[in-house]
Amino acid sequence: MSEVKDRLAALREKMREYGVDIYIVPSSDCHESEYVSAHFRAREYITGFTGSAGTAVITMEEAGLWTDGRYFLQAETQLAGSCITLYRMGEPGVPTVSEYVESQLRPGKCLGFDGRVMAAAKAQDFERMARSRGASLFASEDLVGMIWPDRPDIPDTKLWVLEECYSGESVDSKIARVRRAMGEQQADIHVLASLCDIAWLLNLRGGDIPCVPVTLSFLTLTRETCVWYVRSSIVTDEIRNYLSGHGVEIRAYDEIYKDLESLPMGRRVLLDSKNVNSRLLRSLPESTAVMDQSNPTELMKAVKNETEIKNIREAHRKESVAFTRFLYRLKTGKADLTELSAAEYLDACRAEQEHCLGQSFAPICAYGPHGAIVHYAATEESDVPIRRENFLLVDAGGHYLEGTTDTTRTIAMGPLKPEQKRMYTAVLRANLHLAHAKFRKGATGYSLDALCRESLWQLGMDFKHGTGHGVGYLLNVHEGPNAFRLQIPAGEAPAELVPGMVTTDEPGVYIAGEYGIRLENELLCVEGPSNEYGQFLEFEILTLIPFDRDAILAEEMSPEELQWLNAYHQRVYEMIGLYLPEKEREWLKEYTRAIFS
Amino acid sequence: MSEVKDRLAALREKMREYGVDIYIVPSSDCHESEYVSAHFRAREYITGFTGSAGTAVITMEEAGLWTDGRYFLQAETQLAGSCITLYRMGEPGVPTVSEYVESQLRPGKCLGFDGRVMAAAKAQDFERMARSRGASLFASEDLVGMIWPDRPDIPDTKLWVLEECYSGESVDSKIARVRRAMGEQQADIHVLASLCDIAWLLNLRGGDIPCVPVTLSFLTLTRETCVWYVRSSIVTDEIRNYLSGHGVEIRAYDEIYKDLESLPMGRRVLLDSKNVNSRLLRSLPESTAVMDQSNPTELMKAVKNETEIKNIREAHRKESVAFTRFLYRLKTGKADLTELSAAEYLDACRAEQEHCLGQSFAPICAYGPHGAIVHYAATEESDVPIRRENFLLVDAGGHYLEGTTDTTRTIAMGPLKPEQKRMYTAVLRANLHLAHAKFRKGATGYSLDALCRESLWQLGMDFKHGTGHGVGYLLNVHEGPNAFRLQIPAGEAPAELVPGMVTTDEPGVYIAGEYGIRLENELLCVEGPSNEYGQFLEFEILTLIPFDRDAILAEEMSPEELQWLNAYHQRVYEMIGLYLPEKEREWLKEYTRAIFS
Repeated sequence: MSEVKDRLAALREKMREYGVDIYIVPSSDCHESEYVSAHFRAREYITGFTGSAGTAVITMEEAGLWTDGRYFLQAETQLAGSCITLYRMGEPGVPTVSEYVESQLRPGKCLGFDGRVMAAAKAQDFERMARSRGASLFASEDLVGMIWPDRPDIPDTKLWVLEECYSGESVDSKIARVRRAMGEQQADIHVLASLCDIAWLLNLRGGDIPCVPVTLSFLTLTRETCVWYVRSSIVTDEIRNYLSGHGVEIRAYDEIYKDLESLPMGRRVLLDSKNVNSRLLRSLPESTAVMDQSNPTELMKAVKNETEIKNIREAHRKESVAFTRFLYRLKTGKADLTELSAAEYLDACRAEQEHCLGQSFAPICAYGPHGAIVHYAATEESDVPIRRENFLLVDAGGHYLEGTTDTTRTIAMGPLKPEQKRMYTAVLRANLHLAHAKFRKGATGYSLDALCRESLWQLGMDFKHGTGHGVGYLLNVHEGPNAFRLQIPAGEAPAELVPGMVTTDEPGVYIAGEYGIRLENELLCVEGPSNEYGQFLEFEILTLIPFDRDAILAEEMSPEELQWLNAYHQRVYEMIGLYLPEKEREWLKEYTRAIFS
Repeated sequence: MSEVKDRLAALREKMREYGVDIYIVPSSDCHESEYVSAHFRAREYITGFTGSAGTAVITMEEAGLWTDGRYFLQAETQLAGSCITLYRMGEPGVPTVSEYVESQLRPGKCLGFDGRVMAAAKAQDFERMARSRGASLFASEDLVGMIWPDRPDIPDTKLWVLEECYSGESVDSKIARVRRAMGEQQADIHVLASLCDIAWLLNLRGGDIPCVPVTLSFLTLTRETCVWYVRSSIVTDEIRNYLSGHGVEIRAYDEIYKDLESLPMGRRVLLDSKNVNSRLLRSLPESTAVMDQSNPTELMKAVKNETEIKNIREAHRKESVAFTRFLYRLKTGKADLTELSAAEYLDACRAEQEHCLGQSFAPICAYGPHGAIVHYAATEESDVPIRRENFLLVDAGGHYLEGTTDTTRTIAMGPLKPEQKRMYTAVLRANLHLAHAKFRKGATGYSLDALCRESLWQLGMDFKHGTGHGVGYLLNVHEGPNAFRLQIPAGEAPAELVPGMVTTDEPGVYIAGEYGIRLENELLCVEGPSNEYGQFLEFEILTLIPFDRDAILAEEMSPEELQWLNAYHQRVYEMIGLYLPEKEREWLKEYTRAIFS
């Protein structure tokens, strides 16, 4: 921990040098990515806390780390002895980062952060706050970078073209669609910094970010030009030819800032200030008219096309075969696995599948009490043997050329107590209710959220995470704008659910110190009947992995719920049975037979 | 209809005189009231359409009326032969008022309306639109008023004090709470134009608006002063003394405009531009800082206090006794009633109840096919006999000193077809599901809406109106901010449901040309258990009127739903049986006995 203290001392030295009194270190790269490459883990470097979400605020007297409920335990451990105060976000009486920063601002003080790793919208909030308190803002230097001698480089990774048989739409067609959206808004230029949006638009994939096959880059689009800002060392001749064939010009990664600075007078610029970094926004000339909106690509990439849908079904078939083989091993094999070795076994099952490109996120393989830690990640230190009792919770997913998956199953590893079965059944009912929703077009994921939670609410229970998120196609496993959520973030206009959107359905129950249960399927939104009441929509369940019949209390389920379950299990067997070795197929047949109350 | 043509010609004459090319006539008074007194029915005067909702737009060449689905049939009839085009709001391809107005705007044209009857927010939208099209705005004159010789006056109506045994909170306490809210926002002055908010704040009731016992007035509040702008002719000495005892000064109704004009430099003014008229906003000096937010009173009056809750239960007991006596007459009496005489009979039953102050809205008593017209109002012309077949839909409510009610029952007037029973049962299930929701604090009426609609969605059906609205206490029967709704209006932050809010639960099914079914109860939000998952909330059903057992298909209901129904019916009998004459009590006992599948 003395290492962290030394780093803090060095940072405070730099703060003094630049006249900064309060310095914010977020967990972001220059693209507001959810996962970031090692090069950008400044917040981890300065605090020692390795969780994926968190913000550090350093003053001359104090250093604080803000993180959410997923990481309280981990942060407590990792911050111990560091003199850094842990602020538990969302707990009563705990100030938010903004409230804390505001309380520190005084006339004449200076608030600082690196403008390249702060979203423009958030930076503007801080700017307003500083101004109203008579304080100043310093956003032009990366002070942590200055005191980080062994900072990891961004290694060169492969860049490759996602063929149209996988993407289902040519780059020309996508660019034309975005240009039409720009035309409707009378925008002269569109600035894209979101890596997944750029990858989708160019039908390119890369390897700059763990678990998300994208490339660090920016893109600008006008009615005539398309410029891709990327480090030239990773662009092969093949990629250069491919792009120039689609009218895309390549420039150096950092050149975007000065290109924006030299935009002609009065240009109308379309950008999303939640996804564009503050430095980009500040590079625009004064005369620019900024149209701050969601990127048109956000909705376009969320609504999967027919080719993608066909492929995604295939990806789920493969993932479900792998996961079911994993289940067979757990339920019938020797009790010689630990959390880590079980996760490895699942990876091995997945690797056998054709076109598999690895994990779509670091898997959660959490046995017993670990299952109650929502974002548990087993380490060498925490790893435990999986015994023949209690629950094992496994949340994992893969990337395939045919798409990306995200699934959770909770497995009864031995005889369960009635209360455990009751909880499993409640979560299962919640999952099935949402999956079988029928709804009128116009509903959002916020409208449907209660259909899932209600089964738990009736028992006086709930889960403290979202009910579901959109899933990218060989991109980030977490994708917007579709989501199932209880609370609408202030100022957000929830997205209507439309056919082609893929969203997870993942209710859970977490009993601290005992076990956790989460059951997650992916749902494809499809058209239902259309009549005088409007267009109806419903879901196709993409995931084809059995639920654990050993954990189900049939008498707690209504006849309709049992029918949903039995129909699903029959479909699972029909769709993946053929792809299993005979012994496993026989087991699956038995394991998916109808359940009656 | 020649009358309407003459009026349009006279209005166009005035438009020419003032150089106005497009003139908008909304259905509003100076307070954005939902119901307006006859004096303010300018839109009705100029179009001949008497429905409560609608907007007229008149140009030199065209006159259009916009109204919603509730009024399509009525508007078609009333506009026939008038040369006014009916724009059916919400139908595909029909422009909105804004879109139409925008399409008419050209450089040099002038858009006009009376700024006192247009909400400031809406007026600002039109102003921006005119500016961006190079057109001008004229909002200072009431052109319809100039050509309306026999315009009804605003008659003097009684003004009276709602005692604290009914209101549950003194004026001093209410004013202090609003001042605290102003203090939190650092507001210097608060401008209130919403009549219900003013009536709530001053514990005063009046009679200026049909069905809403309030008085036309404005109010301004500073940290030291409270000024009520009202026509002096209705203020008795008693009221004057009462108000001066609470530090409230009285000034003339129209004086507010010049008082706002002479506000000192740089004042921070709290107001809700959706409820304050455009003229008020435009009266503020340039140097004013406007804080455009919901009135603090909106949420305060929506959350009923303990006295109000106790009273509201009593109001519902009374209304339910009256409604049940009405049901008894319909189900067992002679078949000699028509829609109008049935509604009169219900009024007579209500009038027998102590402290009854009349209808809270014009009742809907709609037989057979009329039931499918969502906001049907029987007239001498449309009135039909109620026969011994099909459904009668009755949506009615009363004002009592103890509060305001709103209830709908649909009654089987004779043998029903199986399909009719299926529909009734689906609506009943929808109603019961929402009423029995349990949910975590943080949920809004938007989160819970699907719990109601889902029973209908599963059958490929829906209803094209909101699921429920807040209910005032001896104020407007429709009140915000709480509501059950599917779609969140753009830019609105939905209100969290909190204990003390009263909201209706009114799903329906409407089969055009055949019948309509709506079942409406009022729900009081109450606290449920509080545990490690948070504070849970649930509903107490305030309405105590039986559902029609002759219309229920028990086999279509789950055991849980039947249990909800039977428990409700038992409670109805226990709570109101005692207040009925013996014969009716015996009938109710039979009529509310348990139903089994």
